[in-house]
Amino acid sequence: MIDTRMDAFSPLRWRDDHLQLLDQTVLPHTETWLECRTPELVADAIRRLSVRGAPAIGVSAAFGLVVGMTGADDEDCAARFDDTWQLLAGTRPTAVNLRWALELGREVYERHRAEGAAAVRTALLAWAQELHAADIESNRRLGDYGAELFEAGNRVLTHCNAGALATGGYGTAIGVIQSSWAAGRLAMVWVDETRPLLQGARLTTWELERAAIPYRLVTDNSVGSLMSRGLVDRVVVGADRIAANGDTANKIGTYTIAVLADRHDVPFYVAAPLSTIDRQSATGAAIPIEERAGEEVTHVFGVDVAPEGAPAANFAFDVTPAELITAIITDVGVLKPPLAQSITQAFDTPSTSIPV
Amino acid sequence: MIDTRMDAFSPLRWRDDHLQLLDQTVLPHTETWLECRTPELVADAIRRLSVRGAPAIGVSAAFGLVVGMTGADDEDCAARFDDTWQLLAGTRPTAVNLRWALELGREVYERHRAEGAAAVRTALLAWAQELHAADIESNRRLGDYGAELFEAGNRVLTHCNAGALATGGYGTAIGVIQSSWAAGRLAMVWVDETRPLLQGARLTTWELERAAIPYRLVTDNSVGSLMSRGLVDRVVVGADRIAANGDTANKIGTYTIAVLADRHDVPFYVAAPLSTIDRQSATGAAIPIEERAGEEVTHVFGVDVAPEGAPAANFAFDVTPAELITAIITDVGVLKPPLAQSITQAFDTPSTSIPV
Repeated sequence: MIDTRMDAFSPLRWRDDHLQLLDQTVLPHTETWLECRTPELVADAIRRLSVRGAPAIGVSAAFGLVVGMTGADDEDCAARFDDTWQLLAGTRPTAVNLRWALELGREVYERHRAEGAAAVRTALLAWAQELHAADIESNRRLGDYGAELFEAGNRVLTHCNAGALATGGYGTAIGVIQSSWAAGRLAMVWVDETRPLLQGARLTTWELERAAIPYRLVTDNSVGSLMSRGLVDRVVVGADRIAANGDTANKIGTYTIAVLADRHDVPFYVAAPLSTIDRQSATGAAIPIEERAGEEVTHVFGVDVAPEGAPAANFAFDVTPAELITAIITDVGVLKPPLAQSITQAFDTPSTSIPV
Repeated sequence: MIDTRMDAFSPLRWRDDHLQLLDQTVLPHTETWLECRTPELVADAIRRLSVRGAPAIGVSAAFGLVVGMTGADDEDCAARFDDTWQLLAGTRPTAVNLRWALELGREVYERHRAEGAAAVRTALLAWAQELHAADIESNRRLGDYGAELFEAGNRVLTHCNAGALATGGYGTAIGVIQSSWAAGRLAMVWVDETRPLLQGARLTTWELERAAIPYRLVTDNSVGSLMSRGLVDRVVVGADRIAANGDTANKIGTYTIAVLADRHDVPFYVAAPLSTIDRQSATGAAIPIEERAGEEVTHVFGVDVAPEGAPAANFAFDVTPAELITAIITDVGVLKPPLAQSITQAFDTPSTSIPV
């Protein structure tokens, strides 16, 4: 089942008895791996965005459950698991893959709890590793499906970072970009910087440099101008949570790009595995939107760019309504409008892509 | 003719024999006045954006002509004037007020050249001071016209900085905001930060703090989200050049906001004096758009935010088509669609606002 090409870079790795996470807050200039030997350290890394991106958060949480069981004995097995679970569940509200992975982890726990703490931990580790591998494999499939929507010479715009760094590996939106590039269907990538935390400028550029895919960095303000000049042929972005009707929560600014793409008849694709679809959220209105500290706006890399104490609003995500989405590229194929219907079909079709 | 309320802060001032410009590149943390005793220093300040904003560039260039004539004798009067004129004209391509002021300055020169260099300089100084005072007065009138378009409780979004700092004083877009606030028709201001150079975060916040007008700072990416949440009632922006048909060049990102405002039925106002209208540009396609160094994108306050050598595109302005503009608020009144027609009418009506 696992793709033999699995040479993909991953922002997380299991080493002996602990999880290591690439600290994405200090990229692109410094490559530091955080050694997470406690669930608190995993939770903190998720909260601080050392690891970010819905699929990567999900896989990290899976390993976080394993870390939480390290050293547990049979008596405190249940308490340890529950405490770890709650700690991780409370880190970030919007990305549904977090909750999705934790629910799967709970199923693994329930199946093995009678065997004792050590058996639970062993089962969780095997499951987390399979989840990690399956995520990469999902993204490769997703990328290849997406490449079929591209044509030679296409210039694609992407927002934030939905690359290897945001997933177990290979990436969702950048997975599509990688597959399109390999298929000779891509000329270059427009990378918008993605304020406030500059994941485009810091992370997507870093990944494209590694993949030797041509790109140009622009401010978020430039997207309308690029489209009105006819310089953008495709948009592809990731997702933090997709509602049952196709409404998509993603990094703040995504909605703006979708509105612009609609005006300029540029296809607007969302790339995400089925695990990002939350059928419990009927529409985008049901998706909780995280509001983060104003300091992320008033400061850039620690430098104060506004008057001291300037009040700022910092919604981390916005919701793009289904009507603005040309298609959702998933690991089981391309979902086209009407999205509510094609999402239902995708879940009703047996799939091997979600290990339990 | 001059408003007796003229207590407005101005980013430029004439002191004895030279021009002083507030260095806006180091705001909001440092207030430094640059002493410009040569036309090269004035040109450099315009190019480096120490002074920016179409009306402020125009008034600075007027004083730049005076500085250029300092110490000239009758023999080199013509050469000095021409050299200064060309130097200033070559600084920035998009803001039409630069060329407009320089053309007016040439008329002053032509009227007085027979009287010798000293008389030319004296006449230019008197004219520049009148131009400066008239710009402030224009903005006060413009602001009061704009306030009539506002209703109590309005939350207005503005982009970049079209305030006192961008003009001779009082501001255009922020002039409207000041007048609306004074008239009790404004609840608060949404300030988008305006990458790459953060004029919103650095300058508009600074001005609103001084005026004690409530505001919240957001990233440029947030505008779509704010509108979809129903949190924006009005948009008002400045302009660097308005074509004869109403197409408006303004800071990059303006077009994106106009598209969003159109989708959400939020009135989108451009605030600018008639001197920003260039009837020689038939449409926005005729307006030259300045492309600035990529380093403005890859660096924030000198901090490198992208991989070393990352290629970046940096268009400084974009063009908002007339069809997306609800009205242009000018110093002679509010111009409504069809804009081509109302612009023609405005110029055909005698006005005392443009001193020659």
